[in-house]
Amino acid sequence: MENQKFGLLVVGHGSSMPYNKELIEDIAARIAKKMPDAVVRVGFMNMNKPTIKEGLDSFNGTGVRKIVVFPLFLAKGVHIKEDIPNLIGLKEGQKRITYNGYDIVYADPLGSDDLIAELSCRRVTQAFAVYES
Amino acid sequence: MENQKFGLLVVGHGSSMPYNKELIEDIAARIAKKMPDAVVRVGFMNMNKPTIKEGLDSFNGTGVRKIVVFPLFLAKGVHIKEDIPNLIGLKEGQKRITYNGYDIVYADPLGSDDLIAELSCRRVTQAFAVYES
Repeated sequence: MENQKFGLLVVGHGSSMPYNKELIEDIAARIAKKMPDAVVRVGFMNMNKPTIKEGLDSFNGTGVRKIVVFPLFLAKGVHIKEDIPNLIGLKEGQKRITYNGYDIVYADPLGSDDLIAELSCRRVTQAFAVYES
Repeated sequence: MENQKFGLLVVGHGSSMPYNKELIEDIAARIAKKMPDAVVRVGFMNMNKPTIKEGLDSFNGTGVRKIVVFPLFLAKGVHIKEDIPNLIGLKEGQKRITYNGYDIVYADPLGSDDLIAELSCRRVTQAFAVYES
């Protein structure tokens, strides 16, 4: 991975409740700390602002040419395979597209990993506090 | 956390595509390896089997008395605050209920954490391979 500024659009599901937006913004901020070469923006598939399109357009003036679109979802599914690709103009299975002069690649969602299992165990252990209270 | 066998129901969203079920089952297996005292089962909010109710009933005969219901979702939202509580008989905000003699507690979803950010960075780095191919 080259040592050069790039755009990173963290895409969230969006929700009528505030929690999804808060989570996406919080994790995007954590990613930004870990990836100093990334210009990080967020965009939501539905219900929240900015939209994905607005998120992409927010890279105007930043000087980035490459944008990674990262869907911050657990699993592949209809949103990952169809809805988000439709919104950025990708055909199904396609991973790369040019948009407004940007060279965009579409990342995979989180997927299964021991890091998720580790965090899950922490939540289960925390839930046990209810028994002890 | 006591050193005693307990039930752990890992709850997934469910999907018309196979990926959510595969992810939930895979992470449940990883959790089971990390928590040897847990009798781990899965249940789905919708579209997949077993349902949440069927998942709870699958602890019959295992000898567990306590069951942690862990929603394997990223953020709180309507599913976490209303849909899943409704399915297990919890009133909004309630964390503990008795069902069929089981003492059930309801855990929080994954939420924001550096472990999620770390895995996110890995997916972003992997996406860069498309530029180099």
